[in-house]
Amino acid sequence: MKDINFDRILMIPGPTMVSSTVLSTMAYPIIGHRTKDYGNILEDTIEKMKRVFRTKNDVFIITGSGTAAMDMAITNTVDKGDKVLIIANGNFGERFSKIAEVYGANIIMLENEWGDNAKPQDVKKILEENPDIKVVTIVHNETSTGVANPIKEIGEIVKEYNALYIVDTVSSLGGDYVDVDKFNIDICVTGSQKCLAAPPGISAISISEKAWEVINSTKSKSFYLDIKAYKKRYESKKETPYTPSVSLTYALSKALDRVLEEGLENRVKRHKRLAKATIAGLEAMGIELFAKEWARSITVTSAKYPEGIVDSEFRGILSNKYNISIAGGQGQVSGKIFRVGHMGEAREYHVLGTLGAIEMAFNELGYNAEGGVNAAMDVLKL
Amino acid sequence: MKDINFDRILMIPGPTMVSSTVLSTMAYPIIGHRTKDYGNILEDTIEKMKRVFRTKNDVFIITGSGTAAMDMAITNTVDKGDKVLIIANGNFGERFSKIAEVYGANIIMLENEWGDNAKPQDVKKILEENPDIKVVTIVHNETSTGVANPIKEIGEIVKEYNALYIVDTVSSLGGDYVDVDKFNIDICVTGSQKCLAAPPGISAISISEKAWEVINSTKSKSFYLDIKAYKKRYESKKETPYTPSVSLTYALSKALDRVLEEGLENRVKRHKRLAKATIAGLEAMGIELFAKEWARSITVTSAKYPEGIVDSEFRGILSNKYNISIAGGQGQVSGKIFRVGHMGEAREYHVLGTLGAIEMAFNELGYNAEGGVNAAMDVLKL
Repeated sequence: MKDINFDRILMIPGPTMVSSTVLSTMAYPIIGHRTKDYGNILEDTIEKMKRVFRTKNDVFIITGSGTAAMDMAITNTVDKGDKVLIIANGNFGERFSKIAEVYGANIIMLENEWGDNAKPQDVKKILEENPDIKVVTIVHNETSTGVANPIKEIGEIVKEYNALYIVDTVSSLGGDYVDVDKFNIDICVTGSQKCLAAPPGISAISISEKAWEVINSTKSKSFYLDIKAYKKRYESKKETPYTPSVSLTYALSKALDRVLEEGLENRVKRHKRLAKATIAGLEAMGIELFAKEWARSITVTSAKYPEGIVDSEFRGILSNKYNISIAGGQGQVSGKIFRVGHMGEAREYHVLGTLGAIEMAFNELGYNAEGGVNAAMDVLKL
Repeated sequence: MKDINFDRILMIPGPTMVSSTVLSTMAYPIIGHRTKDYGNILEDTIEKMKRVFRTKNDVFIITGSGTAAMDMAITNTVDKGDKVLIIANGNFGERFSKIAEVYGANIIMLENEWGDNAKPQDVKKILEENPDIKVVTIVHNETSTGVANPIKEIGEIVKEYNALYIVDTVSSLGGDYVDVDKFNIDICVTGSQKCLAAPPGISAISISEKAWEVINSTKSKSFYLDIKAYKKRYESKKETPYTPSVSLTYALSKALDRVLEEGLENRVKRHKRLAKATIAGLEAMGIELFAKEWARSITVTSAKYPEGIVDSEFRGILSNKYNISIAGGQGQVSGKIFRVGHMGEAREYHVLGTLGAIEMAFNELGYNAEGGVNAAMDVLKL
């Protein structure tokens, strides 16, 4: 690993920076996964995850990416021909449709313009017209566009119908406000590597009573992701069905301690504050934001490039000269927008440092930018 | 993690002990997974894995347990109604049949008595009678019984037919002799946490040209485990399709350095030597081995309990008094056998310490055992 630059700060929307206090737990020895010791760590981690999800529902830890958890949510509930409503306004919303397609779902897409968020009344209309919809999926924080969807309001609507409500909180949980039980979320999936600030490779899923009813009458179409095997093994032995990632369990456990010590409300406040500062800084530089004002995420900010700025050159300067990783656009907005993540372990100094580097990079590329850092300081000094 | 005993040595057949030189790489900072830096680490890790597999075939790294890799091998090659020959003589052989069942395969089981290994002529007979068999699966080292299957000889037979040859080398690769190309293995799956002595949670798979032909004409029945997505992303960008476990990639990379520095031949020699010492020690104590002499694994040794010895008491003493984890039996031999893993980082002192503790535990439980350590020393001093 001698040629790798480990000095960059990660202002991308995941994976995010991980505290050394968390990383260092992975230097602890491996323990057997079929032991009481591992069972205790697993149970403790699951109980902490329940507090972060704010749920009394069952929670499981999966050795796999957030996408494994998304897949698990669908493969265990959706059969061939089942009607599924996919609410999508970005890459991750669309990913649910790609997953549902693999399992032969009858998909209804409710799409928004990228940069806008989903409208509860549109969801109501579709559910009213299609009482046979079995599952509704939505992404809380659409990482690809910097948009937050109104999952609470949509949850109130879905509650009135028979459908299961599946929500991806991969890039919001531990940063933005999520309450699985109050929001009526039947299956909530999340990853470790975003606002929870743990290393990537491990994910979590919550399952409501109502979701179990559907799962128990659905034949799983996956072996590795069959949630019933996880439930059976955990309830009988506090174990996972297959060898879990022991080291990542240590790290997730420690990362959740940090989340709970800071407090979920405080974390939402911090993320809001950093988002506000980032937005103020970019707007002071004359940069137009990509997400509509009412639709903006508090964990990642998306902005349009001024004319003439080339994505690879701009992010190249940030990365190579200033040691800062930010993200470009994906899919239809590739090359047109950039995205600054301010989630997980991000603090004031990261945001100020990033805005300063953005200002310098713009000026180097001929776009006259100034006052960004000062505008952010005006927000942060309050 | 304050109440966890981190002082135990792992003489279980996985996860195995991981060197601090490997564990400590996971304390390195997280880097973005869509960067050239991560691409370089991934490529380097894959190239080292190819050397360990001894293959020119494509190799992919998967964020998931070894079971995820087993599932990936089947879901990408087996369609509903396809004829699959499952060679099984233990829990992991049987796992392939459970996976194939999920995908609706037409399964032919070739089973042996547990403790014995598969016979090439039986495989030949079935292939001769069933020229429409699409896939043959086998587990090289059957962790659950301490048996090694003759994958080279069976590979020579399968080569004469149309079927794909899928081999699980989870608990052999890096310990016992594996040569993917010479053995005609179309899909080889392995885990990180056995003889490779990396932490669990990451796995690898190799895919031959012939396997690609089948995969390309098979609709994947999984989203997360669709190997075509891995190939597409790696070939175009040296990336994984979904966020990989960055820290476990560091660790696997470093663990593979250790494997290659010691040398594959030397590792096989070391594992053979430790197996021979373990067997000599147990036999000197009057313990009957479980695996037939011709079928014995060199990475894990299985043995029958003398009458009157209760598994939980015996392993409880080893674990609580002597800080040594060994494994019990699974499935049909639960409570009847114990298994000593001597793989990965295991050295002479681990084997001698374990045999000594086994001797003391037997004596404490009323079974008169002696001379085990000395018999092992007679092997090891050569």
